[in-house]
Amino acid sequence: MATDTDAGDLEFFFDFISPYGYFASERVLALAAQLQRRVRWRPFHMRAVMKDHLGVTQAMSDVPLKGAYVRRDVRRTAELHGFPYAPAPTAGFSSVTAARVFYLVQAHDAQQAAAYAQAVFRSHHARGISPNTWAQCASLAQAAGVPDGVVDEGVHGGLARDRFRQATEDAVAAGVWGTPTLRIDAELFWGFDRMDAVAAWVRHAERNRESR
Amino acid sequence: MATDTDAGDLEFFFDFISPYGYFASERVLALAAQLQRRVRWRPFHMRAVMKDHLGVTQAMSDVPLKGAYVRRDVRRTAELHGFPYAPAPTAGFSSVTAARVFYLVQAHDAQQAAAYAQAVFRSHHARGISPNTWAQCASLAQAAGVPDGVVDEGVHGGLARDRFRQATEDAVAAGVWGTPTLRIDAELFWGFDRMDAVAAWVRHAERNRESR
Repeated sequence: MATDTDAGDLEFFFDFISPYGYFASERVLALAAQLQRRVRWRPFHMRAVMKDHLGVTQAMSDVPLKGAYVRRDVRRTAELHGFPYAPAPTAGFSSVTAARVFYLVQAHDAQQAAAYAQAVFRSHHARGISPNTWAQCASLAQAAGVPDGVVDEGVHGGLARDRFRQATEDAVAAGVWGTPTLRIDAELFWGFDRMDAVAAWVRHAERNRESR
Repeated sequence: MATDTDAGDLEFFFDFISPYGYFASERVLALAAQLQRRVRWRPFHMRAVMKDHLGVTQAMSDVPLKGAYVRRDVRRTAELHGFPYAPAPTAGFSSVTAARVFYLVQAHDAQQAAAYAQAVFRSHHARGISPNTWAQCASLAQAAGVPDGVVDEGVHGGLARDRFRQATEDAVAAGVWGTPTLRIDAELFWGFDRMDAVAAWVRHAERNRESR
């Protein structure tokens, strides 16, 4: 299945469980405005990509040295950028349901989908509440303005599962292997700390085209 | 063994084989000048850390998806920053001898050691010549102003081996698990793309101290 992404979109691939994904979600709209692009939010299943494609089963936080580094770096990054950060335990959050519900909201309204995604990120990473159940996610969708019925599990649960699985396959097909990853003009940029590089590269590519 | 690093130094941990280490080597002196710190160059054995501490034996370039991403990102980063980039094959470079020679040069003269390290990086990553042999490394040291005899393998080979092994142990003890990593005021920053964050964090920490 082809994605319905416009060629000029800024695609934002992430897993709700990722703290750097949360940080990116707090800046992606400003970056898109600066570049005059539309954001396409694309939650995917990071754990499935790690297991099925990278051959990794160990969570990054459990890797010696690296885990300690990341825990410190996440807190430092939040402090430096002024992002509220008070996460619920990572082990207690399965981001699958939140992502499935996302795709129902997105099929209904793109702006509400962005608001819902930000609400999911903030709930787990800044308010210490992991939205694990369909009811919790539906409640966040409702707060984002989504009408009753759009995220009805009994009616749309199967579609939501299919869309999320497809999104993960699309991410891998696009070359995505980590969260967050931004994709623009067929270029991938992995990591929250590469968001400045995205703007620099797009300007660089534009200058190159103009000077031809 | 304690390191002879001064508390205020900007420690630069790297493996000569790392392209992002090369990029960092081209910017680290400017960063140190901006922060009014002295750079302490600290080549270590990345492959040993991966094997002994991270449980990783596969080179990053061989990991599916990730390898393709890194190859593209390295070329893009070089282009964006204007770094000359024409590397010899990674598989044909063992950085161990170059790093051992480095520690002999450093024991003799810190400024010559910095010039030698930059020359090793540029040789492999920008001129397509991997300095694998002691003679090649001694020649780069000589070009950096190091007198004959300082890097004599027959006389100092054992000391060079010990210093390099110790440097790798020191890196791990400091929490280093990737290349390049910058360490300043007991904070670690992994990756070339974090060099801007180093300056931002140091200024942030200084403001916090002043406002107390």
